[in-house]
Parts: sequence; C-alpha cells; structure tokens
Amino acid sequence: MLHLKTASQKRWLTQVDANLEEVLIDHAHCERKAASTAMNLINAYTENRDLCHEMKRIVEEELEHFEMVLALLDQRGIVFRRLAVGPYGRRLNQLVRPSEPLRGIDRLLVASLIEARSCERFSLLADHIRDRDAELADFYESLFESEARHHSTYVRLAEHFAPRETVRERLDQLSASESEIIREGSSLVRMHS
Amino acid sequence: MLHLKTASQKRWLTQVDANLEEVLIDHAHCERKAASTAMNLINAYTENRDLCHEMKRIVEEELEHFEMVLALLDQRGIVFRRLAVGPYGRRLNQLVRPSEPLRGIDRLLVASLIEARSCERFSLLADHIRDRDAELADFYESLFESEARHHSTYVRLAEHFAPRETVRERLDQLSASESEIIREGSSLVRMHS
Ligand SMILES: [Fe+2]
Ligand SMILES: [Fe+2]
Ligand SMILES: [Fe+2]
Ligand SMILES: [Fe+2]
Repeated sequence: MLHLKTASQKRWLTQVDANLEEVLIDHAHCERKAASTAMNLINAYTENRDLCHEMKRIVEEELEHFEMVLALLDQRGIVFRRLAVGPYGRRLNQLVRPSEPLRGIDRLLVASLIEARSCERFSLLADHIRDRDAELADFYESLFESEARHHSTYVRLAEHFAPRETVRERLDQLSASESEIIREGSSLVRMHS
Repeated sequence: MLHLKTASQKRWLTQVDANLEEVLIDHAHCERKAASTAMNLINAYTENRDLCHEMKRIVEEELEHFEMVLALLDQRGIVFRRLAVGPYGRRLNQLVRPSEPLRGIDRLLVASLIEARSCERFSLLADHIRDRDAELADFYESLFESEARHHSTYVRLAEHFAPRETVRERLDQLSASESEIIREGSSLVRMHS
C-alpha cells in the first residue's frame, strides 16, 4: 500500500537509540517541510482545483503535526533548534524531471514516497520504543494514519498529469531510487537517515 | 490603525469598473500568496515559537479565503486562471533590507502593509458596489476584520526583532513608500493596482 521497495534496516534504530532527541527535533522540521511542500504545489499548480483543495488540507494537517511535535519537545525539555539537513530530501528532489508535465508527476510522487517512508519509520519507531516509552509510541501510532492518507492523495493527484499506468511505472522507478537512498543512509541522525 | 499614509485614488475604482472579473481573479491569487508569505516566514524564523504559531493561523485563514474567493468565482461563472503579476508586491519586496535582523523586520512590515492596503481596498470596493451587488459587498466586508487583524499581528511580531520605537519608525518609512507605489499605480487591473 505504501509502495516502498524495501524496509528500513536495523541501522536506523541504532541511530535512533544513540540520539532520539535529534530525531524528534528533525521530525518537527519534517512536518514543517511537508506543509511547505504542499504550499509550493498550490503555487505551482494553482489552476488545478482538486490538487489545491487536497493540498490545503495537507498544509493544515502538517502544520498541526508541527505544533504537536513542538509540544512534545516542550514536554520533554528538548529545545527546538535548526539542524543540518540530511541528504534524503535533496537526493529525492534531484530525481524530479525538469519539464512539465513530468515535473508535476515527479514532485507529487516524491512527496508520496517521503510520506510513505515517514509512515514506515513512525511505525518502526513506535514498536521499538513501546516498552520504554508508551507515550511516545502512542504519539507515533497516532500520526501513522494521516501520513498514509497523504501518501495515497499524492499518488492519486499524479494521475491528473498522466494515465494511471504511466504514473505507476514512474512510482516504481522513484521508489527503487528511494530505497537505494535509504539503504546508503546518512551519518546525520534523522527521521529519514 | 492600518498605518497607511494615503487613501486609494478614484482611479482604482475606475479600473475596477472596467474589469471587475480580473480584480476578483487577482484577489484569489492575493489570498494564495498571503498564505505562502506566512509559510515562508515559518521556514525563515522557525525557532520563533510565537511567530510560527501566528503564521500557522494566518496560513489557515488565507487558504480558507482562497477557497472562498474560488467559490465566488464559480458562482459567477468566472474561470480562475493565472494572471500577469502586477508591480505592487515586487516593488515592496525590493525594499526589504538584506541582512538580519533588518530583513525580518522588513518582511513582517511589508506583509503588514499589504494586509492594510487589502483592508482599505476591500472596504472601498464594498462601498462602491453596494447598490449594484450587495452580495459582493457583503463578502468584502466579511473579510475586512481578519485582514485588519493580520496587519496588527505582523506589526506586533516585528517587535521580536527590534524595539517598538525602531519598528514604528521603519513602518513609517515603508508606509510612505507603499503610498508612493499605490499613487503611481499600474495599468494592469489588480487588487493592489
Ligand atoms: Fe505530518
Ligand atoms: Fe504527511
Ligand atoms: Fe485573506
Ligand atoms: Fe490576510
């Protein structure tokens, strides 16, 4: 359902255990960036009513998530701060083809894959910390559903730009690249490292 | 209260009468751009909690306004489309000083002035068309209050970056420039022409 080619490796959970605080801070930034991506899509495809309506909803939900993560940081006495940006988003965005309508398809599908990987990681994180930190596990489980819905929304909207079959083929290619980027990982401890 | 140095001239209402449809379409774009501006400020000053919280609210309200204007266009059979961008926003943004914290002050105050001018124009438009088109007049009156609140919010947030007196002096300068830009006008018929 999430169209991911591979599951995260154990390596990521080792990183999380080494620096959970930084993962939580990065998560707040992920939510902010997810809102921003949806806003950018409204600006880019402003004549597409269906897209704008769905993006409005996603902007609202991601900003709500952003505030929820900030509240969680506050509760835990973790100071929110800027972080060096990991390579995941940048490398995915480099795969976006420059000319329309290919660019539109790719922007939507890249967004869909980031949502999918977030889902997978939220679920993994929830299971991993459940015994130690039920509150945090519940928090991550509560986010799973909306991020999964965002994934499906982005894939569906890509079909405004090309027939379903073309979209699925491209999703297959991008998802293979996404798995490769995840497999390589990053030494920066991040939600998508 | 709105910190505008001059009222709009009659010329603008003449433009509105000549091409109300284009003004309405431009208004939809203004709401979208207002949402985008607030989102950009979240990204730029992401560690400023008060600012982010207020910007979240503004993003939500402006996207709501965007959809309200689109619904109004639909009701009137006006097709929403891209428009050539008028000089107002570009010229105001050129006044933003490049280095922080001056840049932050100026971005917030420019946003505050755009909100203020929108308010003034909404009110002017409502009065001007009341006899002919009470529905449209009511619509513009209903937006006045939230745009006036946005104006005040932006001015207040600028005081995070400098003492109140410094902010008021700069607002005075920028407002004088804003009035000059409005006085010069533009042949493109826009909400801020
Ligand atoms: Fe989210
Ligand atoms: Fe999401
Ligand atoms: Fe608005
Ligand atoms: Fe506003």
